[in-house]
Amino acid sequence: MRIARFSIDGNVAFGAVEGESPPGSTDGLVLDIIKGIPFADFELSGTKVPLSKVRLLPPVLPNKVVAFGRNYADHAKEMGGEVPDAPFAFFKPSTSVIGSGDEIAYPSFTEELHHEAELAVVIGRMCREVPRERVKDVILGYTCANDVTARDVQRREKQWARAKGFDSSCPLGPWVETDLDPSDLTIQCTVNGQQRQLGRTSEMIHSIEDLIVNITEAMTLLPGDVILTGTPAGVGPLSAGDEVAVTIEGIGTLTNKVVKRG
Amino acid sequence: MRIARFSIDGNVAFGAVEGESPPGSTDGLVLDIIKGIPFADFELSGTKVPLSKVRLLPPVLPNKVVAFGRNYADHAKEMGGEVPDAPFAFFKPSTSVIGSGDEIAYPSFTEELHHEAELAVVIGRMCREVPRERVKDVILGYTCANDVTARDVQRREKQWARAKGFDSSCPLGPWVETDLDPSDLTIQCTVNGQQRQLGRTSEMIHSIEDLIVNITEAMTLLPGDVILTGTPAGVGPLSAGDEVAVTIEGIGTLTNKVVKRG
Repeated sequence: MRIARFSIDGNVAFGAVEGESPPGSTDGLVLDIIKGIPFADFELSGTKVPLSKVRLLPPVLPNKVVAFGRNYADHAKEMGGEVPDAPFAFFKPSTSVIGSGDEIAYPSFTEELHHEAELAVVIGRMCREVPRERVKDVILGYTCANDVTARDVQRREKQWARAKGFDSSCPLGPWVETDLDPSDLTIQCTVNGQQRQLGRTSEMIHSIEDLIVNITEAMTLLPGDVILTGTPAGVGPLSAGDEVAVTIEGIGTLTNKVVKRG
Repeated sequence: MRIARFSIDGNVAFGAVEGESPPGSTDGLVLDIIKGIPFADFELSGTKVPLSKVRLLPPVLPNKVVAFGRNYADHAKEMGGEVPDAPFAFFKPSTSVIGSGDEIAYPSFTEELHHEAELAVVIGRMCREVPRERVKDVILGYTCANDVTARDVQRREKQWARAKGFDSSCPLGPWVETDLDPSDLTIQCTVNGQQRQLGRTSEMIHSIEDLIVNITEAMTLLPGDVILTGTPAGVGPLSAGDEVAVTIEGIGTLTNKVVKRG
């Protein structure tokens, strides 16, 4: 099931996305409004609205986003770094999250804004010290993410709160796909329709199981928290006016326009 | 005014702390329960309860905690690093926050848990791109913090989400002092009554104004968010069974016992 979060007539709701549409379009898609929330038992109401009539919101409002660095060997190489033996993580704050169709505001403190297409894991239940064989039980589903990065600031500052935590640096969407085997999916990033990144999730150095075991060894994850699983090679610059799109096989396309911060 | 957050008979409330007590004790302190929340106009209800009859909670529930590294030269030196030219920040998640009297659970993934006494700034209103001369307007007050750190993990992992973001790694409290000049206060850490850290906030490399200008250049702060301003020299190990106390002049004492994670 594809679960979207959206606003209609000033109300926020979740809905199951039904129908098929051409790539890059929402024509033909319909939302069946969910009674309750997707983190507990829920029912479909049967009340349907065309997706084109609503405003999509980020599919979840995470308490925290935990992002793993250098989890694809080719990207670690292009960053001039070695492949780390163990995973390492950083946070993106809730204030950095935007949805598909929202604008990425080019911050004033950087001159080198980069895209990083990533598979995002959405946590479905509160959990800590998750054993490897129970990881699947704590996952609600998967969505597309763009770990937008101020590359020059990242080089200068030892920790990445500013470089990767600024407002609008964490586009998520368009929705959460709950029925998906994430182990070998195409992940792609285009800028103005031109391909910049292309990889497969099978190229991850540390698996989703590894990452969730690693982080929950240290901390509690809450329903709606998001894990970013690293980006494949091909990261590169964004400019005001660009349209950046992250497409993951079996999920859909997350599209955001870059604007000059007004 | 000292504003505490506490639970009584299953309800959570804010209260103004009145009275005086001997150091390290809450004898003689009374809470005047606040009508409303301290982030907006509020009144004291006149209903008073002895502080000894309630359970203190973390004085705020931050959406995010932004912590600055190496902001005291002596501590930068003891860490074997240089004093950074510009501030750098990392996040501690909301799930890491505990209050005074709560237990620090010694995590299973470290063998070198350290205390770091810090002055914490509590944000009073939503803000972004705060000009230096307006910084005072966005601050609600100040409290004590312990930036508890898994030092071995910090050395091994390039980014510090696990080393400084584990559950119970961010004790805050005992309350927020709203009437305080933070520019030259004694900051002290004791373990089992023995002094480990002693510094003055005047020794900060980057001032509170610098730090808030720096972070809000990149991101929005929300009411209740917390800024940790760095630790003076003298950081050192904690063991299960230890009682660690952070005392800041004009605020009070934050006390936590370290326990083995059960």
